[in-house]
Amino acid sequence: MQSKKKVAIVGSGLVGSLLAIYLRRKGHSVSVFDRRPDVRKVEFSGRSINLAMSNRGWKALREVGVEDEIRKLALPLEQRAMHVKDKPVYYQKYGAEGEAIYSISRGILNRKMIDLAEEAGAEFRFEEKVWDVDMPKAYLYTGATEKSKWKEYKFDLVFGADGAFSRVRHKMQRQSRFNYSQHFIDVGYKELSISANPDGSHKLNNASFHIWPRGNFMLIAMPNLDGSFTCTLFLPFEGDISFESIQTEKDADLFFETHFPDIKDEISNLKKDFFKNPTSAMVTIKCFPWSYFDKITLVGDSAHAIVPFYGQGMNAGFEDIWVLNQKMEKYGDDWQQIFEEYQTERKPNGDAIAELSYRNFVEMSSKTADPMFLLRKKIEKKFADAHPHSWTPLYSRVTFSDKSYSEALKIGDRQRDIMDEVMKMPDIMNKWDSEEVEQKILNYLNT
Amino acid sequence: MQSKKKVAIVGSGLVGSLLAIYLRRKGHSVSVFDRRPDVRKVEFSGRSINLAMSNRGWKALREVGVEDEIRKLALPLEQRAMHVKDKPVYYQKYGAEGEAIYSISRGILNRKMIDLAEEAGAEFRFEEKVWDVDMPKAYLYTGATEKSKWKEYKFDLVFGADGAFSRVRHKMQRQSRFNYSQHFIDVGYKELSISANPDGSHKLNNASFHIWPRGNFMLIAMPNLDGSFTCTLFLPFEGDISFESIQTEKDADLFFETHFPDIKDEISNLKKDFFKNPTSAMVTIKCFPWSYFDKITLVGDSAHAIVPFYGQGMNAGFEDIWVLNQKMEKYGDDWQQIFEEYQTERKPNGDAIAELSYRNFVEMSSKTADPMFLLRKKIEKKFADAHPHSWTPLYSRVTFSDKSYSEALKIGDRQRDIMDEVMKMPDIMNKWDSEEVEQKILNYLNT
Repeated sequence: MQSKKKVAIVGSGLVGSLLAIYLRRKGHSVSVFDRRPDVRKVEFSGRSINLAMSNRGWKALREVGVEDEIRKLALPLEQRAMHVKDKPVYYQKYGAEGEAIYSISRGILNRKMIDLAEEAGAEFRFEEKVWDVDMPKAYLYTGATEKSKWKEYKFDLVFGADGAFSRVRHKMQRQSRFNYSQHFIDVGYKELSISANPDGSHKLNNASFHIWPRGNFMLIAMPNLDGSFTCTLFLPFEGDISFESIQTEKDADLFFETHFPDIKDEISNLKKDFFKNPTSAMVTIKCFPWSYFDKITLVGDSAHAIVPFYGQGMNAGFEDIWVLNQKMEKYGDDWQQIFEEYQTERKPNGDAIAELSYRNFVEMSSKTADPMFLLRKKIEKKFADAHPHSWTPLYSRVTFSDKSYSEALKIGDRQRDIMDEVMKMPDIMNKWDSEEVEQKILNYLNT
Repeated sequence: MQSKKKVAIVGSGLVGSLLAIYLRRKGHSVSVFDRRPDVRKVEFSGRSINLAMSNRGWKALREVGVEDEIRKLALPLEQRAMHVKDKPVYYQKYGAEGEAIYSISRGILNRKMIDLAEEAGAEFRFEEKVWDVDMPKAYLYTGATEKSKWKEYKFDLVFGADGAFSRVRHKMQRQSRFNYSQHFIDVGYKELSISANPDGSHKLNNASFHIWPRGNFMLIAMPNLDGSFTCTLFLPFEGDISFESIQTEKDADLFFETHFPDIKDEISNLKKDFFKNPTSAMVTIKCFPWSYFDKITLVGDSAHAIVPFYGQGMNAGFEDIWVLNQKMEKYGDDWQQIFEEYQTERKPNGDAIAELSYRNFVEMSSKTADPMFLLRKKIEKKFADAHPHSWTPLYSRVTFSDKSYSEALKIGDRQRDIMDEVMKMPDIMNKWDSEEVEQKILNYLNT
């Protein structure tokens, strides 16, 4: 049991809302501040990528009894559907029988999470902008602008759940010895969509995550409950084939006709959406420390924003809350110890999933169309199926287990080194399913 | 020739003052803003490390005809004096005959640079705090506090010379796709001093940079013109032997008695200064882009703050100005092109000297007391003396040449790899000066 605290959460996104539910379950008074309007009352922006809920996310929802509510909003995807140019669609199972990732629209999920947090007794203060935090006191200052008169709120604890461009972190960053980095990739993204058939059914297989890999760019599509798909085009900002090079409707038309002829006509209002929807940037943010004594801590993207290519951003943020809860149960009112252990445990995992997500962009966009890469995956899968206790594929370890991300990265690197050696074996194309290859992997695993 | 511009420089430190001189020589109107008081009217803080002016710094001063004035403030140091515990002092020449680095007190140099910039016609606005920059317009906003009423200044160009914690960069950082990192090392530093003998002479050899290497910490001393030495203690913040572990005068006494018995009694007011002077942190800052169209650019530490272990922070900043001047001469009024080429050329060099400076801490504090490292240096020196055109030592390339830092890093890495192989030769301790070793290095250089 914990003594009741007056808690502020800055940010009403997915992680902030989930944290509000957790803290209300423990009996704390919870106020959630957001500079933006209530997402339930406005149209959701045309700049989001569908979410892929997986094991870590579900576990965190289950703990506070809201898993079933959320399951109703999600569609299970059990495989990748690879649309390699001029080839038939190729399917790859994500995991074992029954293992799937779950496609959810960010807008729909966020609205539901806020509903649930409100039902749990959290107060939401939308369109109230937090400009400053007095860290030693855990006071918040809000106002219309940075220079207007501010209102002071006294809290016992402040949680920064305010995303990649966190104001709470911005304040922490002014401390000496605060390490920080923001690194943007040279690729941007744009939301597009495929509408439902007139009968409400999906135009593509709705149990698949669809990918059109094209080297240094790609298109993806994830299904929604209403029969539509949310598509995301990932493309370099500058260069020969880039957002910069597509200036007119004719350019857009030619680009899709050349690179995505099989899906071009299915994309709704392609030329209109392409120019209406913003081109968004992607950033990896790392920092440390995440906490300030027993007063302040960062959760989710504000502590560890990552690029979206492993579908783990929300899952990692939800797992933060799950871990924070474990520490609360262990240490009760010792908030400094709670925050200290939370950041020590989570920081290396945040770094690991950042690295894995960054690497996965290269893998998804370029390697998935490479025959040697596909062969490599086939060898790995065959071995993993035959020796499930010796070889869990990296994707499964990240997505379907709750072992730490840093362990997944470490074991994944070991597996990569082994597979590098295997792929060097003479005539591997022909003997990939031989006993010799299997034995070679076993030998490596035993050294 | 350039059309006359109205230019603001934010920051009246060494780099800002030098830039003011350059821009005045070109006939521009120059206003220098600084949030701090005029350094000529206040006592200089007890938190600076003496500067080591070397070739790049002198070259930039020479170009605007102020080299001779500054030479008068500097003492040439031609060698390191290594004070390894329980051993006689060991001297290492920095370079060839006549090559030296020059010790200057930061306070004395900064005051002189401001005098020179004022003489050149620059206006200095001290204790005027810049809070915001309108980047597309090149307007500055100053005021007593961040929230007070601000004064607007209209300029044509703004230069951010406002150091590691630059406000100008802070504004640029809010742009999307601005890459940024700040990384603090776990070692802090504290200024101490050794006063002159009663007759005004130095208590230690005054043509040497003195180092007391002690593993993961060290003390250094650099001479001043008045017979004193400015000392700097570099020590981890936390841990067994750390600033944290020295809480009382007794602790300080014991620490110096144990680790620096030969110099302890020479340090003036040791116990008083140790607790009066602040413990400062050291940070590496990287960012990109440095410029905003034809309006804004960053110079010196605001673009590339580095740790002080190569003595290149000021030299790198001065070289920025020298390069900027080259671009001005090449492109005249095309400021966007000037800024673009400046940042493209300087960014990799900023990254290279950051890396070299970081590595040099390890080398200075721990390796300089390692016999194998000293042997390695001896082999390298012997070879370099015999084959001066084939082997310029890394330190000389950084300090006494004006070839780029990135080239120095690259060639330095190649030399390191060769020396790694040489040090693996059997019985190297005995045959280090043999023809076999010389031939081996020649062979490596030719592959």
